[in-house]
This record gives sequence, structure tokens and C-alpha cells, in this order.
Amino acid sequence: MAMADTRLAYPEGRLILRDVTLRDGLQLTRSWPSTDQKRALLEALYSAGLRHFEVGSFLPADRMPQFADVRDIVDAVAVLPGAHGVALALNERGARDALATQVPEITVVLSASEAHNQANARRSKKESLAAVARITALRDAERRDTIVNAGIAMAFGCSLSGEVEEDTVLRLVEQCLEAGADMVGLADTVGYGGPRQIAQMARRMSALCGQRPWVLHLHDTRGLGLANAAAAMNEGCRVFDASLGGLGGCPFAPGASGNIVLEDLAFLAVQMGFDTDIGLEALIAARPHLSDSLPGEVMHGALAQAGLPQTGSGQRALY
Amino acid sequence: MAMADTRLAYPEGRLILRDVTLRDGLQLTRSWPSTDQKRALLEALYSAGLRHFEVGSFLPADRMPQFADVRDIVDAVAVLPGAHGVALALNERGARDALATQVPEITVVLSASEAHNQANARRSKKESLAAVARITALRDAERRDTIVNAGIAMAFGCSLSGEVEEDTVLRLVEQCLEAGADMVGLADTVGYGGPRQIAQMARRMSALCGQRPWVLHLHDTRGLGLANAAAAMNEGCRVFDASLGGLGGCPFAPGASGNIVLEDLAFLAVQMGFDTDIGLEALIAARPHLSDSLPGEVMHGALAQAGLPQTGSGQRALY
Repeated sequence: MAMADTRLAYPEGRLILRDVTLRDGLQLTRSWPSTDQKRALLEALYSAGLRHFEVGSFLPADRMPQFADVRDIVDAVAVLPGAHGVALALNERGARDALATQVPEITVVLSASEAHNQANARRSKKESLAAVARITALRDAERRDTIVNAGIAMAFGCSLSGEVEEDTVLRLVEQCLEAGADMVGLADTVGYGGPRQIAQMARRMSALCGQRPWVLHLHDTRGLGLANAAAAMNEGCRVFDASLGGLGGCPFAPGASGNIVLEDLAFLAVQMGFDTDIGLEALIAARPHLSDSLPGEVMHGALAQAGLPQTGSGQRALY
Repeated sequence: MAMADTRLAYPEGRLILRDVTLRDGLQLTRSWPSTDQKRALLEALYSAGLRHFEVGSFLPADRMPQFADVRDIVDAVAVLPGAHGVALALNERGARDALATQVPEITVVLSASEAHNQANARRSKKESLAAVARITALRDAERRDTIVNAGIAMAFGCSLSGEVEEDTVLRLVEQCLEAGADMVGLADTVGYGGPRQIAQMARRMSALCGQRPWVLHLHDTRGLGLANAAAAMNEGCRVFDASLGGLGGCPFAPGASGNIVLEDLAFLAVQMGFDTDIGLEALIAARPHLSDSLPGEVMHGALAQAGLPQTGSGQRALY
């Protein structure tokens, strides 16, 4: 096993919030930031206390041109002390390209739904699972300290095929771990989940994964994103993906829309009593780096619009 | 005591969602629906399964002209079989006017924060509490079966004065009940609360109120509205206020914005395993009645934008 347990280990009372703005956040936008604008955004998020960044996908540039500069963004994260970069791969070719960089974590995406696995990765679930095994073997041969994270899309329901059984997801989690993945992420790709479903899954995932971290990747498509995040926090999930302004969505999932809003998630974490080392004011101040580079895109986020709560003295609370 | 316990009693596994669109929802809009448009909206919401409606405030029409037709709306609710109307009053004059109608419930508003009580009702908390006692005496003398509900604003923090102590709120709840109120509502007027705070308060309120229903009135100002609602559902709260499209906000609370979105709250209720008798498709279909009568106002709501989850057959799930 690679070093996931120690690198992503978290002390009691802490959450790790992973910024996916430069990957998931750019999947449905009509334009994308330049490499320099991406670097400036990363630096602003880093200054706000973020340390975990998805940098893009290793896909053919003609398919997803917004990730053509993914190697530059891997390097941009690598120079930030203590920062941890994550890159996506859908297959061995992508994983091989990622392993040729210094990115410390590769998320291999597969789907709990056969229909979405075909739509997204153009292969069956079984083939994607076999690819996880081949990718971890490649990792063992080429760069052993690279974390392989298996990201399971549509883990709470699928807009192509409807309900997804909890046992199906958990069996896939076990199979990914058996295939050599160091950790697993579960994605509510189209916002079908509710807090009870998420809480139940989080209990079972916490039991299954033990001290091994696992990631919850939520979309706010149907308004329950932060309610789902709170439920998962209560049940032991400690690693959450989110994007600035709630941008994002899977281009191969009908009706997909944005991730949960990073700024509001960070506020939720504070309100739930968790430490994240993220400064909310600085996080909100990072938004123009994104919005200025994406003219015409709608930036979501209630906290940014309303501002932080005031203390009795009229000063802002020390978030 | 009036008949709150029986009229608002709820069987296990049920939630009561109260529509506050025609009261709180119209407090910050630049225009408001005509009386006929209000009636059409009520009928659409009633068709969707809603049975509890705030109809407006009994305030001088020159102060809040959007409620000048409140008596007509009381009557419009009264003719809908099984529907329950609620009207707001800030003082004895308002309560007296409300008692002169057939509205079955009067919400008397006071604030957990002295500063907001002054800003909103132009009197001290002590004076507002004394008014609750005078209003329940008036009710006993004039129309005994009227429910008096004491609505406590800023119960989770105040944008004028900062933190509000939980014990302060609970003491005020006890005082309202001692003053003859049949039930109490707690309002997160400016969205300062988080799920742990709400859950802790809900546990204490459920213990304090026993079989007596109590209302949670949430605003989504900082994005945590539905996370807070889910936390309260888990801890025994069974009555929730919300508005169509999330319109609303207190005009005397700095930085106030809209209520939690009724459509998304109803979806949350389903996802949390509660029955509400509300049809989600019909509820979403009611939105144009509001938006068409309020040109230029932003209607919120993720479910309405994304649509209901699909089942495996491509049919919508039976919500």
C-alpha cells in the first residue's frame, strides 16, 4: 500500500477539505482560466489555508482542452509547501501520464452505475475495476509512493439508471481496495442522496475503511449538498471535496450541476465544531480569481453573499 | 390553553411544513401579488398538499402595504377544507385585529435579542413578553379557540448584537408558555445557526415542549438552512416554516435574506423518511403563480431547477 494512511491522516476534530475547482469545477464551464490564472487561484486558496487540490484530468487535450495544462498545474501545486495535488485518470493511459509527473495522488474514476460507467469511461464497470488493478500495479512498478484513490461516481443514485444499491457500492469499494487502491471516494454525482442515506453509507464506510481515509464528493444539484455533508461529518467522514463558487458537474451525467460550495462547506465545518485551518474571509477573497477568469459563469455561495456572522461588538467573528 | 395540541398534533413519521410565502416571503420584495394572485397561489399550494399557511401580518397598511388585504387572505384560507391559517401580530393592536377575523392562529413575534426586539417591534423584550400575556388574555376573552404562537426571532444569533445564549432563548420560551402561549416558534432570522447548535436546541425544545408542537423557522442566509432543518428533524422537530422560491427576510434585521426553500425542504423531508402529504411535482408547478406576480424577484430552489430524481425506468420517482 502507498502512503495514504499517513499523508492523509487526520487528528481528531479535523476535516480535510479538498478543492476540486480546477478539475470538476471546469468541466461544464464555457471557458476556462489561463494557466497563470489557475496558478493565481491556487495561490489564493493556499493562502486561505487549503492544502489539497485537484489539478485536472489526464485526458486527451482534444477531449477536455481545459486540462491541457494539467502538468503545469501539478508543478504549481508541488511548489507550495505542504500542498497535496490530485489528478484524475479514467484509464491506464491517463494514469501512466499522471505517473510521469510528480502528482502525489491519482484518482481513478469508475461508476457504481453500469450505464454511467459506459457513458463516462466508455467501458464496463468490470473493465474499469480491472483497470484499477493494472494502475496500482503500474504505480507499484513506477512510483510506489503515489496514492491511488478510487473515485466511485453515482454512488447514491444515477440520472441514467435510477437507484443504486448501497451493497453494490460497498462491494465495489472492497473490490477497489482489493485491487490495490489506497483509498476510496464516493460521489453523489447528480445530487440524488439525502442525509439519512449519506449517514448510513458513512457509517458503513467508516466501519469498512477503519483508519483509512475516504472521501465524500457531493454535488448540490437538488439542494441537499450541505445537509448531506453535515450528516457525513456526524458519521465519521473527514475528507470532503468542494469547489469555489460551487462550479462543476459531470459532462456525461444528464442533469449534472455543481459541487457543494467550498466557502459554505468551510463555514459548515466551523459550525459543526471541526478545525480545517481555512480562513473564511481569505477563502471568500479568492473568489474573484475564479469569477474574473470565467466571464458569464454563475458563482454560487450564500456565505460570500451574506458575509460572516457579526459578533456583539460589531466586529466579525474570528473565523 | 387553546387547542394547539390537537389541531397541530402529528402522528409519528410526519412533518408539518408551513408555507410562509405570503407573509415572510413578501417582506423584502419590491412588489407583491394582487389579492387574486395571492388566492391563486394559495390554491396551487393547497392542491400540492400544503395545509398550513401564513396569510400576512396585522400591521398598519401604511407600514406594510403588502399585507393590506390580510383579511381577504384569512378568508381565502378558511374556505379551503382542512387548511389552517396563521397571521402575524407584533402587538395588541395587531392581535385585536386578528382576533376580529376567523384566523385560527396568531403568531406574536418577539425577539431573543433586545436590539432586534427594539428594531422590529419598537419596544423592549420585557414589554413584548407582557404583550404576549395581554394577547392571550384577550384571546381567552374574545375567541378562546384561537392558537397563540409566540415566535422568537434571532433565537440562534443576531446580526445587530451577535451571539444569543441558548439558556436565554429557553428561558424566553418558558416565559411565553407561562404567559399563555399555546406553542412557540424559534427563528434563525439571519442564518447564523449551524446543525450542531440547532440539534442541541431541538433536543432541549423537544424535552421542554413534550407533546406540544413547536416550530422551527429557518433562513438560508449563509447556506446552512437545509442542513439545519435535517439536524432538527433528527432531534424531534416536526413543524417547519418555509417559503416558495426561498423568498423572504426581516426588514429590520441587517443582512437578512430568504427563508429556506419550501420545495427543497419538502424533498429533504422525503429523503429523511418523513411523510408530508406534499406532492413535489405539484409544488414545483406552483412556482409560476409566485414568479409571474413578482417580476424581477429571484426565485431560489435547486429541486425546481434540476427536477426530481429519475427512477430506473426513466420515469420520475413517485414523490
